[in-house]
Amino acid sequence: MKRIYLDYAATTPIRKEVRETMKIFEEKIFGNPSSIHQEGRTAKTALEKARNLIAEILEVKSSEIIFTNGGTESINLALFGISRANKKFFKKPRLITSKIEHPAVLNSMKQLEKEGFEIIYINVNKDGLININELKNAINENTILVSIMYANNEIGTIQPIEKISKIIKDYQNKKRKNFPLFHTDACQAAGYLDIRPKKLGVDLLTLNASKIYGPKASGLLYIKENTLIEPLIFGGGQENNLRSGTENVSGWIGLAKALELAQKEKDKESKRLIKIRDYAIKNILKIEKTFLNGHPKIRLPNNINIIFLDIEGEALVLKLDKFGISASTGSACHSKTLEPSHVLTAIGLKREAIHGSLRLTLGKETTKKDIDYLLKVLPKIIKELRALSPISLKK
Amino acid sequence: MKRIYLDYAATTPIRKEVRETMKIFEEKIFGNPSSIHQEGRTAKTALEKARNLIAEILEVKSSEIIFTNGGTESINLALFGISRANKKFFKKPRLITSKIEHPAVLNSMKQLEKEGFEIIYINVNKDGLININELKNAINENTILVSIMYANNEIGTIQPIEKISKIIKDYQNKKRKNFPLFHTDACQAAGYLDIRPKKLGVDLLTLNASKIYGPKASGLLYIKENTLIEPLIFGGGQENNLRSGTENVSGWIGLAKALELAQKEKDKESKRLIKIRDYAIKNILKIEKTFLNGHPKIRLPNNINIIFLDIEGEALVLKLDKFGISASTGSACHSKTLEPSHVLTAIGLKREAIHGSLRLTLGKETTKKDIDYLLKVLPKIIKELRALSPISLKK
Repeated sequence: MKRIYLDYAATTPIRKEVRETMKIFEEKIFGNPSSIHQEGRTAKTALEKARNLIAEILEVKSSEIIFTNGGTESINLALFGISRANKKFFKKPRLITSKIEHPAVLNSMKQLEKEGFEIIYINVNKDGLININELKNAINENTILVSIMYANNEIGTIQPIEKISKIIKDYQNKKRKNFPLFHTDACQAAGYLDIRPKKLGVDLLTLNASKIYGPKASGLLYIKENTLIEPLIFGGGQENNLRSGTENVSGWIGLAKALELAQKEKDKESKRLIKIRDYAIKNILKIEKTFLNGHPKIRLPNNINIIFLDIEGEALVLKLDKFGISASTGSACHSKTLEPSHVLTAIGLKREAIHGSLRLTLGKETTKKDIDYLLKVLPKIIKELRALSPISLKK
Repeated sequence: MKRIYLDYAATTPIRKEVRETMKIFEEKIFGNPSSIHQEGRTAKTALEKARNLIAEILEVKSSEIIFTNGGTESINLALFGISRANKKFFKKPRLITSKIEHPAVLNSMKQLEKEGFEIIYINVNKDGLININELKNAINENTILVSIMYANNEIGTIQPIEKISKIIKDYQNKKRKNFPLFHTDACQAAGYLDIRPKKLGVDLLTLNASKIYGPKASGLLYIKENTLIEPLIFGGGQENNLRSGTENVSGWIGLAKALELAQKEKDKESKRLIKIRDYAIKNILKIEKTFLNGHPKIRLPNNINIIFLDIEGEALVLKLDKFGISASTGSACHSKTLEPSHVLTAIGLKREAIHGSLRLTLGKETTKKDIDYLLKVLPKIIKELRALSPISLKK
């Protein structure tokens, strides 16, 4: 049976062009870029070529790109690195974030709270858009950093990053300060949206390869020049002393290639996927007792998140899996815990409703035909599941 | 020109068997192991198979293996994780290490010093063996952790890990305590020595793939069960909540395969390389004004480290490179700084001598014929370099 993969937000396969680009580095160019012999220099040149390509795409300086092991590490470096390095300049250091961030942000914030930082969690409305006024009021003289994700991994809602940046810049100008700094987690956005840091007005930006058809274990953090930040991982001093460890040359070359293609194709691919997405949503909502999560328009082109009342989401995912369709109840990071999604909780859903959530995330291989197959099997599965256990879910 | 790579301690190419094993996971099995659909479960199964294989090789429990991005991250997790988690139980928390550790250990220790830990750096003798009595005397009621490397990356000297472990165990028994814990960085040892944690008597052990013909960006930390440790990187809670971030399945499968082969072949390969190594050392030392660094016998089978007096090591490396030979002046991590090697300083060498150091590290592809070629060109190069700049180096 042909599989229909509709979980591209969890991770993407590596696309052929990226694999081809990486191949020679995996097979022939294996040197340590810190070595001065030919093998080392060749690896170093390749690494800097990748860095320059990314800098060109993002319209920033090469020296502002720090390569990492992935999105989670980049986020940790941004949050811990900025907070710990600048703590001493503030009486009661404060960090601001939203209630619907990725666990990499939220669990880092929890840890930072233990280290003495005050964390303000901004609310979102029913569509998942953050409360801008609440954010504005939360910024004070003690605020080191604001970290707001670009697009949500569960419900796809896109935050007004430029608007948030303007609020921060206005505050800075008024107070003649360089704080707060602004970080955005753009992992889910990179395939579809404009991610140029200067356009967005961010000081730090997290990206990774495994969500844009690049390799696993490869990510980056953009850090605006002259930003005071300390490393998370100490050692040989690679990556401008901000991220030690032998460089993952082939992985970072793969990231550069994947990002190049993703940004080149983003407008065309977004247009194509929005059509398929809206066709799917319109038809899924014809099933009774269903509703859409996330903003109907201001959402990622590839994201569909639906509540099926009186359904157990995990059972639905497993059933779809048997029909050859890969989906998710929320983020992959949540799928093995019993906690209800913090994102769906934040948009005001009750526990019973959250249990019936299904996330479908489209990608490069997704066609209308795939959705037609989904639309054929889904109503039957829902009917069957509702018939099986209508009572246990209503308590 | 055929290249002769003699810098295997900096990094190794990926061996064919490892690449073959990884291939299917890079091309077909791309799922996120946290997803519950078929692609996720297949990835999860593969990941656990890799973990079980490693556990079998190391003769430990699977749950004691935490996968990471490489040696540096594993070391950071061990040192920061243990220190920060257990700090509160000690009045004046102390960590003990040696003066010749990898920068990943030494720079982490520097950071921990800033965080309020007392760090004791144990001296080594002229052969690079740590002073056991000094270590014994340094252990007190405040000592949380001892971190001593298994085999040195620059001079190849192998430390008496079992003997150190016995000293620690004796102290624990006498005081009826579970501290200090004992960590060893076994990155350079894994290809040649017995690395089973229980045999060695260590509580934590660091390994990585890129020194044993596995992929870059792949390592592990063995952590004895029931050890209190906190994560360095926070997020989705992967790796038993100790190391968040989407799992690098193919990289970790590559590590398992590389480790399996390395440990299976270690005795035979050690025997083969010791012969070549000693043949090379004996003949290089025939060049005047040279001497060997590191212990003549208790050293890694693949390590040669020689001082050429009145020579600038970097010039020597670049010259050898032109003759098709890849070598190093010390660790790859040092090769771009102007600091004299901390290892060679610790064994008592003067700055002038250190400048003339050359590290040759042998590997799977190294043959006696390669060494014969080296022995042919090396005396000429040395003579030439000494003729060129005898004065500037004597000041």
